[in-house]
Amino acid sequence: MFDEVMREDKLSEECGVIGVYAPGKDVAHITYFGLYALQHRGQESAGIAVANDGKINLYKGMGLVADVFNEDVLKDLDGFAAIGHVRYSTTGSSEIVNAQPLVFRHKSGMLGLAHNGNITNVSVLRDMLYSHGAIFQSTTDSEVLVNLIAHHSRRDIESGIKKAMIDIEGAYSLTILTTDALYAVRDPYGFRPLCIGKMDDGWVIASESCALDTIGAKLVRDVEPGEIIRIDESGLVSIAPSENAKRRAFCVFEYIYFARPDSIIDGFHVNQVRREMGRQLAREFKVDADIVIPVPDSGTAAARGYAQQSGIPFEEGLMKNRYIGRTFIQPNQKMRDLAVRLKLNPMREVLAGKRVIMVDDSLVRGTTSKKIVQMLRDVGVKEVYLCLSSPPVVGSCYYGIDTSNRKELIAATKSSVEEICKEVGADKLYYLSLKGLLNVFGKSSKDFCSACFDRKYPIPVYDVNKFSLE
Amino acid sequence: MFDEVMREDKLSEECGVIGVYAPGKDVAHITYFGLYALQHRGQESAGIAVANDGKINLYKGMGLVADVFNEDVLKDLDGFAAIGHVRYSTTGSSEIVNAQPLVFRHKSGMLGLAHNGNITNVSVLRDMLYSHGAIFQSTTDSEVLVNLIAHHSRRDIESGIKKAMIDIEGAYSLTILTTDALYAVRDPYGFRPLCIGKMDDGWVIASESCALDTIGAKLVRDVEPGEIIRIDESGLVSIAPSENAKRRAFCVFEYIYFARPDSIIDGFHVNQVRREMGRQLAREFKVDADIVIPVPDSGTAAARGYAQQSGIPFEEGLMKNRYIGRTFIQPNQKMRDLAVRLKLNPMREVLAGKRVIMVDDSLVRGTTSKKIVQMLRDVGVKEVYLCLSSPPVVGSCYYGIDTSNRKELIAATKSSVEEICKEVGADKLYYLSLKGLLNVFGKSSKDFCSACFDRKYPIPVYDVNKFSLE
Amino acid sequence: MFDEVMREDKLSEECGVIGVYAPGKDVAHITYFGLYALQHRGQESAGIAVANDGKINLYKGMGLVADVFNEDVLKDLDGFAAIGHVRYSTTGSSEIVNAQPLVFRHKSGMLGLAHNGNITNVSVLRDMLYSHGAIFQSTTDSEVLVNLIAHHSRRDIESGIKKAMIDIEGAYSLTILTTDALYAVRDPYGFRPLCIGKMDDGWVIASESCALDTIGAKLVRDVEPGEIIRIDESGLVSIAPSENAKRRAFCVFEYIYFARPDSIIDGFHVNQVRREMGRQLAREFKVDADIVIPVPDSGTAAARGYAQQSGIPFEEGLMKNRYIGRTFIQPNQKMRDLAVRLKLNPMREVLAGKRVIMVDDSLVRGTTSKKIVQMLRDVGVKEVYLCLSSPPVVGSCYYGIDTSNRKELIAATKSSVEEICKEVGADKLYYLSLKGLLNVFGKSSKDFCSACFDRKYPIPVYDVNKFSLE
Amino acid sequence: MFDEVMREDKLSEECGVIGVYAPGKDVAHITYFGLYALQHRGQESAGIAVANDGKINLYKGMGLVADVFNEDVLKDLDGFAAIGHVRYSTTGSSEIVNAQPLVFRHKSGMLGLAHNGNITNVSVLRDMLYSHGAIFQSTTDSEVLVNLIAHHSRRDIESGIKKAMIDIEGAYSLTILTTDALYAVRDPYGFRPLCIGKMDDGWVIASESCALDTIGAKLVRDVEPGEIIRIDESGLVSIAPSENAKRRAFCVFEYIYFARPDSIIDGFHVNQVRREMGRQLAREFKVDADIVIPVPDSGTAAARGYAQQSGIPFEEGLMKNRYIGRTFIQPNQKMRDLAVRLKLNPMREVLAGKRVIMVDDSLVRGTTSKKIVQMLRDVGVKEVYLCLSSPPVVGSCYYGIDTSNRKELIAATKSSVEEICKEVGADKLYYLSLKGLLNVFGKSSKDFCSACFDRKYPIPVYDVNKFSLE
Repeated sequence: MFDEVMREDKLSEECGVIGVYAPGKDVAHITYFGLYALQHRGQESAGIAVANDGKINLYKGMGLVADVFNEDVLKDLDGFAAIGHVRYSTTGSSEIVNAQPLVFRHKSGMLGLAHNGNITNVSVLRDMLYSHGAIFQSTTDSEVLVNLIAHHSRRDIESGIKKAMIDIEGAYSLTILTTDALYAVRDPYGFRPLCIGKMDDGWVIASESCALDTIGAKLVRDVEPGEIIRIDESGLVSIAPSENAKRRAFCVFEYIYFARPDSIIDGFHVNQVRREMGRQLAREFKVDADIVIPVPDSGTAAARGYAQQSGIPFEEGLMKNRYIGRTFIQPNQKMRDLAVRLKLNPMREVLAGKRVIMVDDSLVRGTTSKKIVQMLRDVGVKEVYLCLSSPPVVGSCYYGIDTSNRKELIAATKSSVEEICKEVGADKLYYLSLKGLLNVFGKSSKDFCSACFDRKYPIPVYDVNKFSLE
Repeated sequence: MFDEVMREDKLSEECGVIGVYAPGKDVAHITYFGLYALQHRGQESAGIAVANDGKINLYKGMGLVADVFNEDVLKDLDGFAAIGHVRYSTTGSSEIVNAQPLVFRHKSGMLGLAHNGNITNVSVLRDMLYSHGAIFQSTTDSEVLVNLIAHHSRRDIESGIKKAMIDIEGAYSLTILTTDALYAVRDPYGFRPLCIGKMDDGWVIASESCALDTIGAKLVRDVEPGEIIRIDESGLVSIAPSENAKRRAFCVFEYIYFARPDSIIDGFHVNQVRREMGRQLAREFKVDADIVIPVPDSGTAAARGYAQQSGIPFEEGLMKNRYIGRTFIQPNQKMRDLAVRLKLNPMREVLAGKRVIMVDDSLVRGTTSKKIVQMLRDVGVKEVYLCLSSPPVVGSCYYGIDTSNRKELIAATKSSVEEICKEVGADKLYYLSLKGLLNVFGKSSKDFCSACFDRKYPIPVYDVNKFSLE
Repeated sequence: MFDEVMREDKLSEECGVIGVYAPGKDVAHITYFGLYALQHRGQESAGIAVANDGKINLYKGMGLVADVFNEDVLKDLDGFAAIGHVRYSTTGSSEIVNAQPLVFRHKSGMLGLAHNGNITNVSVLRDMLYSHGAIFQSTTDSEVLVNLIAHHSRRDIESGIKKAMIDIEGAYSLTILTTDALYAVRDPYGFRPLCIGKMDDGWVIASESCALDTIGAKLVRDVEPGEIIRIDESGLVSIAPSENAKRRAFCVFEYIYFARPDSIIDGFHVNQVRREMGRQLAREFKVDADIVIPVPDSGTAAARGYAQQSGIPFEEGLMKNRYIGRTFIQPNQKMRDLAVRLKLNPMREVLAGKRVIMVDDSLVRGTTSKKIVQMLRDVGVKEVYLCLSSPPVVGSCYYGIDTSNRKELIAATKSSVEEICKEVGADKLYYLSLKGLLNVFGKSSKDFCSACFDRKYPIPVYDVNKFSLE
Repeated sequence: MFDEVMREDKLSEECGVIGVYAPGKDVAHITYFGLYALQHRGQESAGIAVANDGKINLYKGMGLVADVFNEDVLKDLDGFAAIGHVRYSTTGSSEIVNAQPLVFRHKSGMLGLAHNGNITNVSVLRDMLYSHGAIFQSTTDSEVLVNLIAHHSRRDIESGIKKAMIDIEGAYSLTILTTDALYAVRDPYGFRPLCIGKMDDGWVIASESCALDTIGAKLVRDVEPGEIIRIDESGLVSIAPSENAKRRAFCVFEYIYFARPDSIIDGFHVNQVRREMGRQLAREFKVDADIVIPVPDSGTAAARGYAQQSGIPFEEGLMKNRYIGRTFIQPNQKMRDLAVRLKLNPMREVLAGKRVIMVDDSLVRGTTSKKIVQMLRDVGVKEVYLCLSSPPVVGSCYYGIDTSNRKELIAATKSSVEEICKEVGADKLYYLSLKGLLNVFGKSSKDFCSACFDRKYPIPVYDVNKFSLE
């Protein structure tokens, strides 16, 4: 259950990016609507940069897309192309200096960049740039990226991007804006998603296809791992990748939790994948029960798949308060149990006297699940079987989903599934098998990164401490 | 479909009220959590008043509960009892002067009041009070209520409430706070809900039982129509109603749309009622189709009931963006169609080539439904059958749900269901019958007000123009 | 020295009022500029009410006039007449509920009121109104005033004002706005100032004539004690006072400190009065010194008068930081001495080696003066003679200048002038004599209230505790 | 008259800088108080950077010092040394990205910089840095400065500063903070002021000595033109200047208008210099008049000098509203004349029937003076002689006081003093002679830059258009 209230426990550095090329149309509004659709990928800051008349104008701020922008701001962002960014961070350093897009002036003009992912050799790159006299205002890997591209762009920006890709290791899906063109770049492993959409008289690049749907654009295809796309007045062209990946490494966690269910990523419908994970759960874990309920919203699709496969009726046993904001006053110790009740309310008339299969996508610290199990028992549930549509998280992610607080992960601190089950108070606990998970993707299963479950890292991470940028 | 984006079209003056009596406990925090659970009843303003040491302290502001209050404010609101209020209004006059609770000093002390409902003879009462020299700072019926109670309270507050109830006509569920006690009052018809909960060492009064669940209180019973409840150091007592209603007139619209699905109101589970409405829809309207989909979230329960009764599979065909706030920038005319896409995204892989029964709770202006129908066709839906779990709205409500903009109601402007169907572009359109709707409540069906569907007003409304308070 | 930084020590409940009648002109802007000129009379809140088309619209907020209003707000305040108010309060209860103007609906329409002064029999009046069922939302005497006028206005508003004046005891200068006319009212003693100005095609009423100058209006005369002025489409008329005062009691403290130096009040130029006080000081206190310096800005005029009379050169020995706002971060204990230095800087080249006469208007707690004296000694001043252009404050004011914290007044806690002199560290200390102060006004001297210096209260104050409204 | 209301007409890019080295003391508070004293040098943005424990923390924001900082912010800024900055700009580009101090990470650590002045060869420097791959986020010359120092600091920061000074042309007074030390740098001409103060256990560097007074530090001496000062745990040392100026070029406009009167700059008391300018005016321009009045506050000191020298009595004929903020609502055209009245009120009793010498420091567009002259005539002044304590401004300043809008300068658009006199409506108009102005400084007069009066630029400005940074 990686839901809003839980977010502060684990995830960070997720982002969403977008790029719009549509001369004559209202690119700032289109970008705004696209960011709205990508809001789930980052709620801390939002920004839009627009190219017009040889200049790039930028507006960014802390908070949700709807809070940062208003009609006056958007009207001022006139132009033929735009890039946008939403950012999330768990760290205390939620500062405007870290918000994106980054816009800067270099030798031959202006350039804007929006980045989703994590550069793994950032320390090496930063030291190299330092030795050439570079300075940095923030601690983000994105500012290093920007300096690296500028460093290599003394001839032109395209050769700069190509050369930078030779230096960079890690995960990156980028939209880049110049005063002439819009670029889209995806790292050679394809860790983070990035897709191409076609509008009447224009193009859209976005982290997820749900943004295309909102804008009214049609999904054309994904940006290929290692590919560079350029869009300008002569249309969209693919520039040959500077390097070919040895393997693909699509992030499996995007499908389990992070992406929106109505997106199609690298050819797979997220919602269908989730439902199939639930079906696979039902094949692996057979138990006699009365109803299947999800932990909304993160467990809904998998629960539906479980019910479908098992024939056990699906019910909405937990009602979610749709007005829970991202932030609410932390109650004092005495009342902390109320926090979960604020968000979820068990439906006694549905649950009382039943044996219940409760499906969620994953288990983080386990404290929320423990409270939910207790709430179920309080309304008279007889048996609680907790099923998770992913294996235990045992490894940190260095490619854009921050799971660095491993000490807090219940799967890393308890020695067995039985112990976890006991801790959360369930009668039974079942994790989807890694094999079962990957089989959902058929013969493509080898194209996915599942390092957080099996510690098989596609890119070696020599020095984890280097990630501590501050 | 009376959902957030749609709110500005129709509903107004809905409110949620709460009262907490719990000496020694943190009543402000408890009230805050309760208001959080009632947030769906009003998002324009929020307020809490707390009684302590012979005084009543008040804090209120514009916006959501989470925005109005912070930890420092709640800490300052120390006391043995509290009342709270959330308010919604469509009118431009969203001013702090209209926010509640109202707190005032009268002859024998201080008094706070939170009101949900509409007084129908407010002009008569105001004129009567004017003739005694009263003055008013706002145009709300609640300020009239407060003056009327003060006018009658020269002996004591309880006799003041009783006398006021003889004068007042209309809908009112009240929580009232004095420096000694907490009162709960419900009008003799019981238009608006109000229920009683028990905590360890304390009592809670709330508009809906979902607030009790959040707080961890147990639902004891509803406040009876015409009843006055007093809670003080000697416990909870029911003071005999000053007047008995000729009939009960529970608002049926609370069950159709307004209340939270996890509430139990006057003995009925809201979610079960909604699902039963869907089942009744299926009994009344039989059609050959491939799937049943809801317009989330307002149509979800009824859609599930329809699917269950008809045997046609339930699917989530429209994915909702969970980050849509109440307000977002209105796009310019050219892009207005995007507004619905921001909120709902049709799932092509679920819908393409299907005959679809789409269930919603009601139809307001029809413009949103029209756009959704078009979106369904765009992804390849073959047939769209739009089913509504309520009859056409043909009458204004004068008891707390503002449907005064009748000219905008599609059911009031089109001469037939066929015409409406054509307007929204569906292949078929079906409204639940009034008889079918009321049958859901069994033999209690005569206890409900359905004036918005049949114009049978429990309390005569002599002069509608008097409602125009400004 | 009653200056900004010091304000929090002593003064409260000062206010400034204005009224503008000018059909066809931009009354909101005119009122705004007038309030700007009266800003020194109150910095806590500001408000403007405008009459138009049978209604009165109100806008008020916490803070300075320039912070509360912007162009959009003023544009919305269209009308033929307006009243405005600025308010200051030392109490913690600086809440919007206490801000003025007060606007209310009564039997025959709407009414707005702005009040400067203090009602001394407010408890008696409130009890009387309570017994008629009145309720109050604030603890201000102004709300009592408003209810009293409404109570008496069942026939018409003018007879209501007249009857209310029979009941009310205390100090009040009022501007009152109806949907037809603008009224100006001054209490029978004339404690607080109020004057009449003529514009092209319009009239202005204001606390001080400096507001007329700013607007470009010409001072016609003062509103007479006990007078009621009505301005409407038939022009300005004086309604006979309902009661004649036994004596006049103009506040002498307005001239000493509170009013702006460029105002003319009840026939006296404030700046000239202050300079004459300085001359009288020089006649009373002769000392051999090198220079005369003021404590800016409150002591400047008197210092100039002293220099002129004595022939000792005037110098600016203390330079004032013009950017000191009303609020600045209170330094921690260790650095508290810096607070005075932030505001005033002694000019070593002017002061070193000199015997200095330092003139201020009055002495409150003495702590600031003590620090200034020390600063003078630090830059090498040989002798410091502190002269005050008013007698010691020994009595509280119940008529609109709050001096209730008598325990903090150095003149009330020290037994002799010598002791005070020792406390502040001066070589000599001299207070202007009361006789000398009043002689400045010539044969009008008996028309002034000097109760804060001699405890001769024009209106008996039976029960001081009744002033504690909360 | 270069006063607040007038500011938007002419001046820009003025700044104030400060540096504090005081281990164990509350450096953030000390810096805050110092910035408060320098507030007149910039009101657009304010910032403080603090070095502590190998890091530099920064806080900056738009607005006045008192608005940007609060106690919580200052508490978080713990450290052994700090730098601070206030900035003013007339351009529309008042953005946070331009606020200072600038803090950045370079090869060997972190560095903070606060800059007052203007670099004249910024284009050349930026191009040089571009060719090394540098990028810029703002258009300020200060960011170029920072990159240049970093570029040269690959060995160490001190050699970096020295090398950068060889490259840089123009005006700069800097405070620089590293994680070990505080540096002060002044350009070889000494255009902008910078002085050194001693506290108990600490040192202060500030633009003006008034900041030292506020903090309680003693003025030691000015930083010499071309000098670099280092302060660290081994105390204060002067590092030999990397280049010696051919001549000094202290800005004479600091003395005429910009600096605070209680500052001592390069050995001259500002207030005494201003008074002497007034005396010189009286020697040059003899006229028969009744009184001398200043335009407060900018003309006060010179008016006093004029009165002293001429023997004509000094009077305060214009009363200034002390509550005029920097911003107020611009009245519509019809009411624009009120703007001056808001700020200044002529004292009829002082002025009527008199021949008046009105002294101001300088004349910008002349529109305000024209209104003041008219106001004087309206209250009955017989003759108005306008005297200015500086020569006509005929040249732009490229060294830190922006007078680029020459087209608006009345002295640049009118062909003779007579024409200007006629335009402002005075009976006579007199400008102080340049010779008379410079003679005030005695034999040091050749050490001053007076390019704005005589176009003799100490540093050649090859290409003025290069100043257009955006």
